[in-house]
Amino acid sequence: MIKNQTTSKQVTHRTIRAFKKRSLSVAEFETIKEVARHTATSMFTQQCSIMHLTDEDKRKQVRQITGQDYVGTNGDLFIFVADLYRNQQIRKQLGKDDGRLHKADMFMQAVQDTVLSVQNVVNAVESLGLGAVILGSINNDPFRLLQTLELPKMTYPILGLQVGEPNQEPQLKPRLPSEFTFFENNYEREVDIEKLHDYDQIVQTYYDLRDTNRRIDSFTHQMSSEKLGLRKTKRDELLQAIQTQGLCLD
Amino acid sequence: MIKNQTTSKQVTHRTIRAFKKRSLSVAEFETIKEVARHTATSMFTQQCSIMHLTDEDKRKQVRQITGQDYVGTNGDLFIFVADLYRNQQIRKQLGKDDGRLHKADMFMQAVQDTVLSVQNVVNAVESLGLGAVILGSINNDPFRLLQTLELPKMTYPILGLQVGEPNQEPQLKPRLPSEFTFFENNYEREVDIEKLHDYDQIVQTYYDLRDTNRRIDSFTHQMSSEKLGLRKTKRDELLQAIQTQGLCLD
Repeated sequence: MIKNQTTSKQVTHRTIRAFKKRSLSVAEFETIKEVARHTATSMFTQQCSIMHLTDEDKRKQVRQITGQDYVGTNGDLFIFVADLYRNQQIRKQLGKDDGRLHKADMFMQAVQDTVLSVQNVVNAVESLGLGAVILGSINNDPFRLLQTLELPKMTYPILGLQVGEPNQEPQLKPRLPSEFTFFENNYEREVDIEKLHDYDQIVQTYYDLRDTNRRIDSFTHQMSSEKLGLRKTKRDELLQAIQTQGLCLD
Repeated sequence: MIKNQTTSKQVTHRTIRAFKKRSLSVAEFETIKEVARHTATSMFTQQCSIMHLTDEDKRKQVRQITGQDYVGTNGDLFIFVADLYRNQQIRKQLGKDDGRLHKADMFMQAVQDTVLSVQNVVNAVESLGLGAVILGSINNDPFRLLQTLELPKMTYPILGLQVGEPNQEPQLKPRLPSEFTFFENNYEREVDIEKLHDYDQIVQTYYDLRDTNRRIDSFTHQMSSEKLGLRKTKRDELLQAIQTQGLCLD
């Protein structure tokens, strides 16, 4: 592969969950804003908004929703929002109906704009020597999250992102070999877990070295564990919450 | 803002739709694979797969679906797939049921993994001096796309990405000023289109300079146009197609 400043950072990406006790500098903050603003957008609809949470009560609420004690403590906390509200308001003020805005198609475009923006910011942040953790866990309680952020209908918070100066140096987490995830022309339906044996071994080593208090578990065991098992959880309310916002209706 | 090799490319991102007549070199191709492989993944589920289409018939089919004549001509064509099939097969072979894999929650995690991967690759590609176009238009005919790619249930193709050596130098497309998209603590519900007047003017200038054959249209006019109007289109079949794949059921 070709290594340059950008790609070298990308192939050594690791999630940072412990940050030093300082906020982003003005220059760092502006960089994040500018990079997010220049992210690709589907059909020029620009359907992503970003919230920066500095309010201590809001940060605490989000921490409680995620159940992760590092959320909203050190570092800057952002929420990336799929936003069809802005275009709805533009249409309204120009005397138009909501058009396609309630369609799954349009919602997915907004989700894509939003997630592209998250990764773009992650790459920027890491290029500055900072670290980040993407927070899917904001979806642990969808209705409480909507209430906490006081978001209008036609918006939905997709991912959180916490950013700061790293206060830890985690190991690189081993990923599936690309033979399992990368296909020429034809999708390979044969998944032979015997062939995942070596990878499973590597994953177990990783956990072992990273944190000796943490249970060692191979990839195939994690995927077949209760983590993906059927159980009652507020995460099941996700689709209902999205649709309550007027999004992804059909 | 802080400019370095990475962020300088990010804030001058533009979509490239015309490529020179050469394929990616082995080194470029390996870089893309490695960068994609190291992208962040929700709960370590690694639910993204990538298909590289070199087969001329498949490329032609995808071109027809998108309705864009540059798709599948010069440049390398990739399809980024939200993939819950692999983990379903792992669970099956270890004697487990499908667990949460049919839930909207899990589908959204897979979509996030997939879109993060797209942007990570875009940033890598641009750092190499190459260009890319993200193809949301693969969703113009969801069922035909599934058939063309011969994808199993529990997978869904989210975005295409065409990559190559640029054969054009488009202008930077102006984006909404961040006061409209970036919020401190509180989401601003007041959208005053009068305040978008200056931005609208800039957008019109941009189109004018880029391609004199193309109709000049401001941002607010584009958003209130028939582009987002209710009309019958195969893009309306998106949610049905996703659910036919066994995904996002509830």
